Amino acid sequence: MVKVTLLAGGVGGAKMAEGLAALDDVDLTIIGNVADDEVFHGLWVSPDIDTVTYTLADLIDRKQGWGVSDDGMRALGILEALGQPIWMTLGDKDLGLHIYRTMRRAQGDRPSQIAHDVARALNIKPRIVLPTDDRVQTRLLTDDGELSFQEYFVREKCVPEVSGLWFEGIGDARPTPEALDVIDRSDLFVIAPSNPLVSIDPILAVPGLQDAIVHTHKPVVAVSPLIAGKTVKGPAAKMMSGLGMEPTALGIARHYQGFVDRLVIDDQDAGFVEAIEALGIAVSATDILMPNAERKAALASQVLEFAA
Amino acid sequence: MVKVTLLAGGVGGAKMAEGLAALDDVDLTIIGNVADDEVFHGLWVSPDIDTVTYTLADLIDRKQGWGVSDDGMRALGILEALGQPIWMTLGDKDLGLHIYRTMRRAQGDRPSQIAHDVARALNIKPRIVLPTDDRVQTRLLTDDGELSFQEYFVREKCVPEVSGLWFEGIGDARPTPEALDVIDRSDLFVIAPSNPLVSIDPILAVPGLQDAIVHTHKPVVAVSPLIAGKTVKGPAAKMMSGLGMEPTALGIARHYQGFVDRLVIDDQDAGFVEAIEALGIAVSATDILMPNAERKAALASQVLEFAA
Repeated sequence: MVKVTLLAGGVGGAKMAEGLAALDDVDLTIIGNVADDEVFHGLWVSPDIDTVTYTLADLIDRKQGWGVSDDGMRALGILEALGQPIWMTLGDKDLGLHIYRTMRRAQGDRPSQIAHDVARALNIKPRIVLPTDDRVQTRLLTDDGELSFQEYFVREKCVPEVSGLWFEGIGDARPTPEALDVIDRSDLFVIAPSNPLVSIDPILAVPGLQDAIVHTHKPVVAVSPLIAGKTVKGPAAKMMSGLGMEPTALGIARHYQGFVDRLVIDDQDAGFVEAIEALGIAVSATDILMPNAERKAALASQVLEFAA
Repeated sequence: MVKVTLLAGGVGGAKMAEGLAALDDVDLTIIGNVADDEVFHGLWVSPDIDTVTYTLADLIDRKQGWGVSDDGMRALGILEALGQPIWMTLGDKDLGLHIYRTMRRAQGDRPSQIAHDVARALNIKPRIVLPTDDRVQTRLLTDDGELSFQEYFVREKCVPEVSGLWFEGIGDARPTPEALDVIDRSDLFVIAPSNPLVSIDPILAVPGLQDAIVHTHKPVVAVSPLIAGKTVKGPAAKMMSGLGMEPTALGIARHYQGFVDRLVIDDQDAGFVEAIEALGIAVSATDILMPNAERKAALASQVLEFAA
């Protein structure tokens, strides 16, 4: 068994997790992102963790890539009638989980224990680990003012130009013992094809967490979230441009330089191979789109082979 | 306009409220019961207030008499999968209201302000007033141990024998300014055909509230919740027996003696008229069942005439 630790955001991260979870010889742990967590209607919503959880529990709405399949909007309809803003689409089943999480948090339980218990209750085999139990929130400076990630992504539909980005609370955040433990026992680290700026960076920015990975001296292989300069889903390319980064596989390589030793990019980006190798990063070019279960598992296999 | 204050519990109280609300010349305020409030999954549920609210907003599930019509159970299904007890049937729409209430309470808003805002948002014309903003909870001593009212009523389906009953927190409860104000301006008080022990008594037991009604010297007319020794809905008759009270219209009269000056009973209980009058309570016997809107309004009219 290869002990694989996947650092993952939302939709792209969940696809990579599914691919790795489908392999017999992989003992998988996912360290997810909590920096786009936000409180809606008094309930603690953890969009990236939930997308990974719903995907691995096979509850995910596969058309959308997020949310729960066959969900309803009855609770949200009442909240709207009561004058609440409802731009964050929270289905009834989804709210069931948020109600549970909020109750457990109010009881003083650690967020990582709650995420673990949810995954177990939903019969998820891989471990889902939080990078920190402390409050960290991605904040964006835009031409429309300061926004949380959900405000930018969902409410404003990524229209505002992003010129600054920081993780509120990151200085005081402590890594969870579970994250440090799994890192210590890991044979290999995979960086999912998630938004590096708002999904992967806030995991690595938890003080001590990236160092812990580096100190294992185990391979760190990233999968590019960009294909031909575009993101499969989400605003990564647009945000990279806004923050002065080249929105290409090479830009991704530069961003992860010094931490990642292997990068898997798409065939369409094969022109960047030399430039990426010049950064001291080994490259594998392949078809990295994951439209179905077969392709997810196939890419996961290739990532493992490349890292071996 | 006659300013009517209705003291009401859940289903029976909501029917009486609907009847009074249908009359053109009535300016109606309902003082509801909060002593069977209970927290489920971290959410503050207020079953009696909600039944009145949903009924007057025409959102009520009219087959059940409680809950919201066309509701779903998606959130509860997830809560069940997460190991939560789900004996309290909370639909998705219903949960929307509980989420809102819990959020407002956590923000420090007074429960009576929240109830008022909900009623206004749902376009309810009568005022819905809480007797107290403090925590009061009906506790029952049964042969199955100490239970809250919801545990007894919903979870245990009224099977345990009740031998004792008290209102936890009642000594420290203060009446709301809204309740005292509406009592002061009221022309007439109506006691709905609700369970006297667990719906009406915990309203009247809020220190100062019953005194405030008495001091107005305005008529107080009660409608019996029993017909031929049986309750239309709920455990009133069984509970009265368990606590040593006669479960009849006469038992109701004895319970309210000294406070109520008029009692409306069912035709079937006309045999009790003399005995009730002997207690100093005027009696009107009529058909008090309220199976539809016409009968609700008709009974409300008769109550007003009788009180005039």
